[in-house]
Amino acid sequence: MTETQYFLLPGPTQVPPSVLRAGSAPMVNHRGPEFKVIFQNMIESLKQIFRTKNEIITLTCSGTGGMEASIVNFINPGDKVIVASIGNFGRRYRDLAQTFGAEVDFIEAPWGSAIDPEEIKKRLDADSRKEIKAIIFQHNETSTGVYNPLEAIAAACDGHPALRIVDSVSGMASAPLATDEWGLDVVVAASQKAFMSPPGLAFIAVSEQAWQVQAKNTNRKFYFDLDNARKFALLGQTPFTPAIATAYAVAQALKIMLEKGLDNIIADHFRRRDIVRQGIEALGLRCVADPGCASPAVTAIYTPKGIAPPQIVKPLREKYNAVVAGGMGDIKDESFRIGHLGYINDLDLIAVLAALEMVLLELGLDITLGSGVAAAQKHLMKSSK
Amino acid sequence: MTETQYFLLPGPTQVPPSVLRAGSAPMVNHRGPEFKVIFQNMIESLKQIFRTKNEIITLTCSGTGGMEASIVNFINPGDKVIVASIGNFGRRYRDLAQTFGAEVDFIEAPWGSAIDPEEIKKRLDADSRKEIKAIIFQHNETSTGVYNPLEAIAAACDGHPALRIVDSVSGMASAPLATDEWGLDVVVAASQKAFMSPPGLAFIAVSEQAWQVQAKNTNRKFYFDLDNARKFALLGQTPFTPAIATAYAVAQALKIMLEKGLDNIIADHFRRRDIVRQGIEALGLRCVADPGCASPAVTAIYTPKGIAPPQIVKPLREKYNAVVAGGMGDIKDESFRIGHLGYINDLDLIAVLAALEMVLLELGLDITLGSGVAAAQKHLMKSSK
Repeated sequence: MTETQYFLLPGPTQVPPSVLRAGSAPMVNHRGPEFKVIFQNMIESLKQIFRTKNEIITLTCSGTGGMEASIVNFINPGDKVIVASIGNFGRRYRDLAQTFGAEVDFIEAPWGSAIDPEEIKKRLDADSRKEIKAIIFQHNETSTGVYNPLEAIAAACDGHPALRIVDSVSGMASAPLATDEWGLDVVVAASQKAFMSPPGLAFIAVSEQAWQVQAKNTNRKFYFDLDNARKFALLGQTPFTPAIATAYAVAQALKIMLEKGLDNIIADHFRRRDIVRQGIEALGLRCVADPGCASPAVTAIYTPKGIAPPQIVKPLREKYNAVVAGGMGDIKDESFRIGHLGYINDLDLIAVLAALEMVLLELGLDITLGSGVAAAQKHLMKSSK
Repeated sequence: MTETQYFLLPGPTQVPPSVLRAGSAPMVNHRGPEFKVIFQNMIESLKQIFRTKNEIITLTCSGTGGMEASIVNFINPGDKVIVASIGNFGRRYRDLAQTFGAEVDFIEAPWGSAIDPEEIKKRLDADSRKEIKAIIFQHNETSTGVYNPLEAIAAACDGHPALRIVDSVSGMASAPLATDEWGLDVVVAASQKAFMSPPGLAFIAVSEQAWQVQAKNTNRKFYFDLDNARKFALLGQTPFTPAIATAYAVAQALKIMLEKGLDNIIADHFRRRDIVRQGIEALGLRCVADPGCASPAVTAIYTPKGIAPPQIVKPLREKYNAVVAGGMGDIKDESFRIGHLGYINDLDLIAVLAALEMVLLELGLDITLGSGVAAAQKHLMKSSK
């Protein structure tokens, strides 16, 4: 195993050395005063990133566990819900909702496109009896590298009482999100994305309206029971032993993030997106996402005709020590993905573009070495003023 | 916050420095070849500790998440099950089973005692129609410091088809357990106990019979769906992003454990139990557990008359930097607990006994300084030959 890699996945993401070190501190009592301070500070810092005054509950699980919690606490079996998908993880939300008995009206944008807020509005306007209990939508989708116009989607929900449940696992702190201002009721995030920390913790912000719905929820739940978690959170604890080391890491990562400022962090993500996209397009490759909704967190790229994703991903890793992701879902066999969220050095992106050029040339494609790099450099120079 | 503590909780436990360091390595792709090697080696090592050839599934969650998985995969709503409890976590299993709709026949031993295998046998013998689908019992209970005669309980189940589901979260690798030899169908463990690692991963061994039951299970489940996890495990992966850093830590901890040998590890736990118990009894305090079932993982101790647990736990931490646990459940207000599982130096136990003597003296008790320590020393010298 190579100790140091150019690590450009859409999650887990690179963890800064100080965050790795923070995560290697000795254990403390998760019901003692030391953890209480760490835990409560973590929550307060998370609120700034979520842009919310709502409570944020911490769960020891992956992002999918957080998504499950957002279903089993707020949706009853038989409830009508809309799931608006823009790719693989949107489908996972559909599967989750159906698994727990929801009646799902499934909307899916063409892969590479965002949700049209009008689609949501039309359905809600037609729901004169207000039977729809929740609209589930995504902030960002890693399979396609698309981010949604979250503010406009939220606005399309105005006037309808359905809960707004948002998967922001890969979107949080990479694309804009304002939980309170946009009236988002349930927002799910996870430690291993823009939070630059190891996987193991999920975070879920819950509005007052959502808590009221939760109180009447009839689903069977125990580990993911958010009301129980809320009671323990008031004591600065979790109901069950939390991933303490991951909490240490997240606490340190949040310190770095708040020092940098959320607006700067998001601007960095958009700049990195454009560096990658300029480089990719200069090489004649095509990005999956439409330009208007191209994700600041990850870029999905169609492979050149006749080239399967492993033909690119494998030599990048084996020859150049650069880790990018393969495709997912409908475009699994025709795309690969460069993650650019979290802790990334701009030059890393240029290095990986250079490696990609060499791999493509070795595959027999007509590539001018340095051409993708040059386009990326130009964008980098321009955007750094 | 004090950086170094005498850390004697029944979980999380102390993490050895090399395990902390292992957990602070950079991230890798959880679907890539590097993680596959770590993951598969971890599973193979775990099998040696579980003493099983059965598959072991890894979940990113606390031990309670693993317990939930053992319910929602193997017990249908309406199923009759026996839950045999020896304390607080036995009750949690009852609550879990009831939450997911099981019809629970709840047995509880008096706090401080183990389960009488005859109790189980009587019930199973009376079940002539074989309606009982599962017997859920504990390996070790941290609230009372009691461990069960697992082999005898398992033998009492012989001849009945009910699944044998075992909570071994705090028992695994501290008290004897032989999954295959004793015919245990589902065995749950977690990273933060005798595995000397941070919390965040649960492990669950599943027998062939249990997989057959799982295939017909009708519970709603997604994050804890073990059949899905099994499919991914065949690829050396997990369905959802795992706690990678915790897996690094566990892999290193298992290396240490297998070098030491499971029998030696368990013998160490029993020696440490006796060191603590001898010291405690020499001070005139009374242990909660009957001597015949006193846990090798943790010792629960009644506080002297008129003394509340925080009067002991708090000065131990604040004055002497020694972290022990308060009471739980029925004996919450009359007991405290010294954990001695995982990575413990014998002398740490003696140091904490010394601190306890000073705290008790300061509380006005008639304590001869050094008397508990001396009893512990004698046992230590005898047991080290």
